[in-house]
Amino acid sequence: MRELKIVENIRKIAGNPGKGVCVGIGDDSAVLKYDKNKYMLWASDMLIEDVHFNVKKDGYERVGRKAVAVNISDIAAMGGTPKYITVSIGIPANKRSESIVRALYKGLKGLCRKYDVKIVGGDTNRSEKLIIDVSIIGFVSKKHLVTRSGAKEGDIVLITGPVKDGKKTHLDFDPRIEESGSLVRGHKIHSMIDVSDGIAPDLGRICDLSGVGARVLADSIPLSKGLSLKDALHYGESFELLFTMSASAAKKLIKNSVSRGEKNRYYSIGEITRKKDGLRLVDGKGRSTVLKMEGFSHI
Amino acid sequence: MRELKIVENIRKIAGNPGKGVCVGIGDDSAVLKYDKNKYMLWASDMLIEDVHFNVKKDGYERVGRKAVAVNISDIAAMGGTPKYITVSIGIPANKRSESIVRALYKGLKGLCRKYDVKIVGGDTNRSEKLIIDVSIIGFVSKKHLVTRSGAKEGDIVLITGPVKDGKKTHLDFDPRIEESGSLVRGHKIHSMIDVSDGIAPDLGRICDLSGVGARVLADSIPLSKGLSLKDALHYGESFELLFTMSASAAKKLIKNSVSRGEKNRYYSIGEITRKKDGLRLVDGKGRSTVLKMEGFSHI
Repeated sequence: MRELKIVENIRKIAGNPGKGVCVGIGDDSAVLKYDKNKYMLWASDMLIEDVHFNVKKDGYERVGRKAVAVNISDIAAMGGTPKYITVSIGIPANKRSESIVRALYKGLKGLCRKYDVKIVGGDTNRSEKLIIDVSIIGFVSKKHLVTRSGAKEGDIVLITGPVKDGKKTHLDFDPRIEESGSLVRGHKIHSMIDVSDGIAPDLGRICDLSGVGARVLADSIPLSKGLSLKDALHYGESFELLFTMSASAAKKLIKNSVSRGEKNRYYSIGEITRKKDGLRLVDGKGRSTVLKMEGFSHI
Repeated sequence: MRELKIVENIRKIAGNPGKGVCVGIGDDSAVLKYDKNKYMLWASDMLIEDVHFNVKKDGYERVGRKAVAVNISDIAAMGGTPKYITVSIGIPANKRSESIVRALYKGLKGLCRKYDVKIVGGDTNRSEKLIIDVSIIGFVSKKHLVTRSGAKEGDIVLITGPVKDGKKTHLDFDPRIEESGSLVRGHKIHSMIDVSDGIAPDLGRICDLSGVGARVLADSIPLSKGLSLKDALHYGESFELLFTMSASAAKKLIKNSVSRGEKNRYYSIGEITRKKDGLRLVDGKGRSTVLKMEGFSHI
């Protein structure tokens, strides 16, 4: 997969980021030292016309909204709280420029207001195709930080809700900030990622960085109406949180959420295995096959 | 000028950034509270193929270099030290993707090494046109922070070196980090900006945000070989620092730099006047005309 190879190359070129950086390239956010109790989280995510959206069909406001949502989701995946963004945009230079900016920012601002995120800077340029790159800063208590690299053999793999059909919902999803906060404050989460590219590649990333394997039970993956198992595994843009925790903690989490009437909130979909077992899918009859890390390709 | 109007609109939409933010949209970097002694600086600057560079003529490595240089320049303009970047790129998805990434990062990494800046994250996407958006974090001692909004009537306007011909040098310029550090540590600088769009619009920004006017002496503007006065005023991409300080401090600065053999390092090019006097250009015969804020247009 070209993207994985490119990211791996970038990580090599970038080199050791030094002692102020706890987590560098390769996780949902970079983790920087901040103060005695907190880490600072920092991520950037770019959306490009005709790659990530179709502006005629989707409209500027929803594109602006999504540009913030994907970045907030990166902070949620680390257990953090989003705080500030900068916004770099490229838009056509013509008499419609001002109304395009207004519509984009209406979407941006709407979601920022919901999550108390402040817009503090950015850059405006002309471009044939619409481009919007948001950079986000958030914070997380040291004791609540979760990365992609902490999964342990025997962990249960869970997801925050039925996998949505990203093709239909990718512009309007709500990042799982509330769920993330509730998870890291009340439970010991070993690893977490947001499902941007599909369960297979995103769980594969957890496995790669944690040095483990995983077995996914096909029948246990909760699917939103009309979604195929294949798209849940390999398409992505669902933005649910995929996370792992010990079997006893997972049991407690699910029991508690049921007793609080939150029955459908967390779903166990598999377990973490040894590295040498790789990433596998088990069907309803117990047949196990290799699960390829293919997913939504950014490049 | 469309860009100024758009940025003003964005500032209105973004609203009050709250008490953690000392300077929001409208300066070279956002200024965030950090600790007892330091502020955190944060900026983002996007470069787009065929708007900011021609990749066939310029080459990927130099484009990568420039993407970092313009961001480091934003930190220099606040008196700060650059520390970390994230890099979002859009590149054509084909068999050359990997070699393009390598060349871009060679340029990025080269300049990062020179200024001890670490690459800590980013995002890679496919795009017909090459896009590179760098987000940078730096730090500045509270007592050394300089913004665009501190110019005072009677201040001298200075520049860090002969205005370069941005059309020729914009890919290879060295951001004025060393000069910035020396200025803020040794002198009381009232306001500062990097000349990205031309002396006229950039000094105009200082005037707007400081609530003052300015008079520029045409004959005193140091020009690199072959550069026209018009391009120095209205083209930009020179990336020298333009700054203001009291007349007595300016005298001392220039005297000291001469005695240290740094004769050509700082040039006085005019003075800050009252707001109602506006932005004016004075020619060799003492004739004063209105200086329009027109410059390199990003949109």
